[in-house]
Amino acid sequence: MRPSAYCRRITAAAAIRPTQYRRKYSKLSSSAHIVLRHPPTVKRRNADSRARIAEIAGGQPWIAKAPVFIAVVVDLYKTGLGVEKAGAEQVFQRTLEGVLAAVSDAGIAMATLMAAARAFGLGIVPIGGIRRDPQAMIDLLELPPNTFPVDGVVLGYVAEESSQKPRMTIESFRHDEKYHPETLQPAIDAYDRTLQEYWQEIGRTDGFSWSANMAQHYSTFSRLIKSVAQKQGFTIEV
Amino acid sequence: MRPSAYCRRITAAAAIRPTQYRRKYSKLSSSAHIVLRHPPTVKRRNADSRARIAEIAGGQPWIAKAPVFIAVVVDLYKTGLGVEKAGAEQVFQRTLEGVLAAVSDAGIAMATLMAAARAFGLGIVPIGGIRRDPQAMIDLLELPPNTFPVDGVVLGYVAEESSQKPRMTIESFRHDEKYHPETLQPAIDAYDRTLQEYWQEIGRTDGFSWSANMAQHYSTFSRLIKSVAQKQGFTIEV
Repeated sequence: MRPSAYCRRITAAAAIRPTQYRRKYSKLSSSAHIVLRHPPTVKRRNADSRARIAEIAGGQPWIAKAPVFIAVVVDLYKTGLGVEKAGAEQVFQRTLEGVLAAVSDAGIAMATLMAAARAFGLGIVPIGGIRRDPQAMIDLLELPPNTFPVDGVVLGYVAEESSQKPRMTIESFRHDEKYHPETLQPAIDAYDRTLQEYWQEIGRTDGFSWSANMAQHYSTFSRLIKSVAQKQGFTIEV
Repeated sequence: MRPSAYCRRITAAAAIRPTQYRRKYSKLSSSAHIVLRHPPTVKRRNADSRARIAEIAGGQPWIAKAPVFIAVVVDLYKTGLGVEKAGAEQVFQRTLEGVLAAVSDAGIAMATLMAAARAFGLGIVPIGGIRRDPQAMIDLLELPPNTFPVDGVVLGYVAEESSQKPRMTIESFRHDEKYHPETLQPAIDAYDRTLQEYWQEIGRTDGFSWSANMAQHYSTFSRLIKSVAQKQGFTIEV
């Protein structure tokens, strides 16, 4: 199947995803938004764009090499046009509720894109790295106010299957009736051991335990994106 | 299939969902978290809990009536334990990046739960209404610091299929190469007309146009959840 054909079908699937705001008694409209970077009529420009996105995401070569990158963008610009048409002013983008509703919906769109792509036999690489420099993505995609690039997915045919990394036990993820903090420490200790064994098994010498990985990435302030979000309109006042 | 059986399979599917942080060269770990409210050993307590959640969500009777409600909770408490184990202190929950990464992942988990449930022949109702009173959900589920209830899904067998609400045209959702603001106004105008026709067709007299609906819900400050999020640890400092 040609990229233009599978892109059409995959984005159509994401467009009709179920969301908390798409029910019979829906209160709010959907707000995730897809910007598709697909094989272009002007080939050169597109390859340049993907190379640029690879750079923004911290040098992830598969973004440039694969035929398609789809960015998922939160879009409260479109909803704002509706509000204005009805004679009012939108304030939703100024609330944490607006951010949570829109970003959760963006996640649902991401998952739907990935599931549809897999159903067509394609490989996927989810990319959160575009948040390393959201302003560069805003400039590249010419995004209007009240939008924000959240993440994206690389699509293409799989050259070589990678092995399935083990996961932490389900007890650390599924809690019945209430949160059970006592299940976590044993699950973490077991997973740290499991991961070390897995790295040895696949011959990687630079693999961290889960805990060490968490410490490396969650203990420092990186990706300072609040100011860009505020400039776009997401001021999170209440 | 009994609820305990399908719950086990559906949450297992969500636990192995693809996320931007679950790749070979992953930098961060996953952070969405499932709290499952399933048919209990103590039946009375569970029915009470679902009735309470229905109330929190603004009186949505299907939450109390259906056998299962699964809440999706952002969980940076678990990751914090890993960071501490490695001798560091987690600051991720204090950043907008942390909120976006975790809530996007919660959306991916939501979509995976819904897709798995549908694959088992179940009906679903996504529920964002638990954010009407997140503190009540935190109390009910006994959620620790650095967690936040984002949304959830009602599961059960379908009594009566509802009709598929029309959607806005794909041009307003999929943008090729760059954002195309010029496509929006015609799409909005057409959709406002389509929705009015749809309400007439299904005999609803209280249906709004899309624009009127946006104006009603996006132009006022409702769901003031920032203070609860801050109290939980999500201070969004950078």
